[in-house]
Amino acid sequence: MPDFDAASLALHEAHKGKLEVRSKVSLATRDDLSAAYTPGVAAVCKEVQARPERARDLTFKGNSVAIVSDGSAVLGLGNIGPLGALPVMEGKAILFKEFADIDGVPVVLDTQDPLEIIKTVERIAPTFGGINLEDIAAPKCFQVENALQGIGIPVFHDDQHGTAIVLLAALLNACRVTGRKPEELKVVINGAGAAGTAIAKLLRCVGQDPSVCVPVRDVLVCDSKGIIGRQRTDLNNAKQLLLHYTNRADQSGSVFDALVGADVFIGVSVGDLIGPEHIRSMSDSTVVFAMANPVPEIMPEVALKAGAAVVGTGRSDLPNQVNNVLAFPGVFRGALDARATRINEHMKIVAAHALSACVESPTAEQVLPNPLDKSVAPRVAQAVADGWHESQ
Amino acid sequence: MPDFDAASLALHEAHKGKLEVRSKVSLATRDDLSAAYTPGVAAVCKEVQARPERARDLTFKGNSVAIVSDGSAVLGLGNIGPLGALPVMEGKAILFKEFADIDGVPVVLDTQDPLEIIKTVERIAPTFGGINLEDIAAPKCFQVENALQGIGIPVFHDDQHGTAIVLLAALLNACRVTGRKPEELKVVINGAGAAGTAIAKLLRCVGQDPSVCVPVRDVLVCDSKGIIGRQRTDLNNAKQLLLHYTNRADQSGSVFDALVGADVFIGVSVGDLIGPEHIRSMSDSTVVFAMANPVPEIMPEVALKAGAAVVGTGRSDLPNQVNNVLAFPGVFRGALDARATRINEHMKIVAAHALSACVESPTAEQVLPNPLDKSVAPRVAQAVADGWHESQ
Repeated sequence: MPDFDAASLALHEAHKGKLEVRSKVSLATRDDLSAAYTPGVAAVCKEVQARPERARDLTFKGNSVAIVSDGSAVLGLGNIGPLGALPVMEGKAILFKEFADIDGVPVVLDTQDPLEIIKTVERIAPTFGGINLEDIAAPKCFQVENALQGIGIPVFHDDQHGTAIVLLAALLNACRVTGRKPEELKVVINGAGAAGTAIAKLLRCVGQDPSVCVPVRDVLVCDSKGIIGRQRTDLNNAKQLLLHYTNRADQSGSVFDALVGADVFIGVSVGDLIGPEHIRSMSDSTVVFAMANPVPEIMPEVALKAGAAVVGTGRSDLPNQVNNVLAFPGVFRGALDARATRINEHMKIVAAHALSACVESPTAEQVLPNPLDKSVAPRVAQAVADGWHESQ
Repeated sequence: MPDFDAASLALHEAHKGKLEVRSKVSLATRDDLSAAYTPGVAAVCKEVQARPERARDLTFKGNSVAIVSDGSAVLGLGNIGPLGALPVMEGKAILFKEFADIDGVPVVLDTQDPLEIIKTVERIAPTFGGINLEDIAAPKCFQVENALQGIGIPVFHDDQHGTAIVLLAALLNACRVTGRKPEELKVVINGAGAAGTAIAKLLRCVGQDPSVCVPVRDVLVCDSKGIIGRQRTDLNNAKQLLLHYTNRADQSGSVFDALVGADVFIGVSVGDLIGPEHIRSMSDSTVVFAMANPVPEIMPEVALKAGAAVVGTGRSDLPNQVNNVLAFPGVFRGALDARATRINEHMKIVAAHALSACVESPTAEQVLPNPLDKSVAPRVAQAVADGWHESQ
């Protein structure tokens, strides 16, 4: 992988960050000032006070998303704190603008206490049309997101659901490539943090209408101690909840034990984990998404040589990059357009299906669109907006 | 005054508010993405984590100001709540950009409790280079601002200090026009809220080095019950503090009693308050700043006819408009440029002097620059930055 460090530092130094806030209206004359600010703005204030839903038409709230982080679980960097996380949140903001014309505002927090995070987001919520939670460590990320589901605007932890949506889209297309049915798959997920948990939930249709969402047959989730199963006595609450919808056969053992006979491996934890012998222990035409960054759980050429049919990673220099930018801009665009008050499970499923449909003829080398493809977000947005209306 | 209501509503509706957040960097290629976002951004994160002061060079923090309000005291509208206040905060943000190239972010709060406001601002502070408090009611605005003075970035309640700086600049030039010395003036302020209190403090050099700041001789502050004096038993804490530096002769009575023999009237409360007879009861060559909005305490033509030498208001359609936009963009620009950790009293005084110096030859009709004059903010900014360094 090329070294982008120097280029990135130079870019950030030259521009003093990546974001700016601009006016959409002219301020050249006194009349401009009177319409945009005092005294004219008083009429807008009164209208919004009388009819709060009009804030969506008349203010920043209609098109803005706060990107909130406590810096406790940043990329591959870990707990680097709020200031260290700010460049990532800025990056997210410019992706929101670039792909979905959404006004993203980074908000990094001087607290890592989940109750304080919840309270702070509640307090600032009137300003924004949505909240994108980002790089908040598991398991507190689950508590924070759950507590904020009733605040009247969509709250979406991208590390969970953005990853899960893109992964599901990739898996759907991998099934088209390999001639498999998703509902028949046996899936092993390595990593029981934000991404692993959300992927397991989405694959198992947790919280969804069983008449329309068909779950994959079985999902095993592994953490650093192995398969998460009933015999484990060291599971936190979030991992105990996993037992309700994973590991139906009550297996135990290591991740390598889990892989024997499995159809799909999904890695969202540590790199350089599995070898060709593990791929060979899986079923035929296996699908591998080795998303540890920057070093995948197994390099694609190794997995392919050992018999894997489709391999994806998190890296931009390899085929089938599972990149959240394929999901979150369209998801929030759709939610804002529909004036959705939350992003529910149905909206995530339809987002994944819309994303997979963006690749007309998937191949082993292309189960996902190019992350720079600007036609993706509008299609995802339309599906998400429709999904909101369908589920009301 | 022309009716800007319809124009303002149409403008806000057409643009869905007034603000947008944009990228300053290109995102056209995979390499662009790799430098602005992953994997390159990790180098920037690590640099900022290791050397937090570098956030000023490399992130949004270097040039951003949050415009924070609880909507408890908006313009002439009163307590209209956070959503109602959002159009004003957006207006402020675009003025920050237009006049000082600062990235202003509106943040309206779903709480009006001062302790909650303080906590929320502390929590979001890492994101921003400064905090502009706005339209927060007195007396809690004093508590909120004071509590936030130690958070490491400038916190400035514009309704207090922005107004006080512009008023002092106007008064300095009114003295040049009338041949008076500021230190000899007897001043009456009607209104003991945010603006009135801050004006009294600034005129009396409260918290400043007595060797360089010469206070005006006497200041009387009046509220709806009359002159604030020692005999009053109904004073809240904030008003009791005023007794330390106003009303030296321990006067009592109404605002009209206060005006007898006074040199300057400053109105920051209710309109249509005083008549020609009150102007005539003042000293010769009186100075009147009748800033109640939209109806001043006395109309300029009435005051001038009754003998006033200089009259200003808060209105854009009358001469000598006391408009905060002459101060806050330059004040924050200077504070950001100097990397000041607060905006101290000395910086406010030098800002006022720099602003008054922007009018080369003041006249009775022009004691302040045009609010649209783009040369003002850079001059104020330079003085404020110098003021910070002088006071270290």
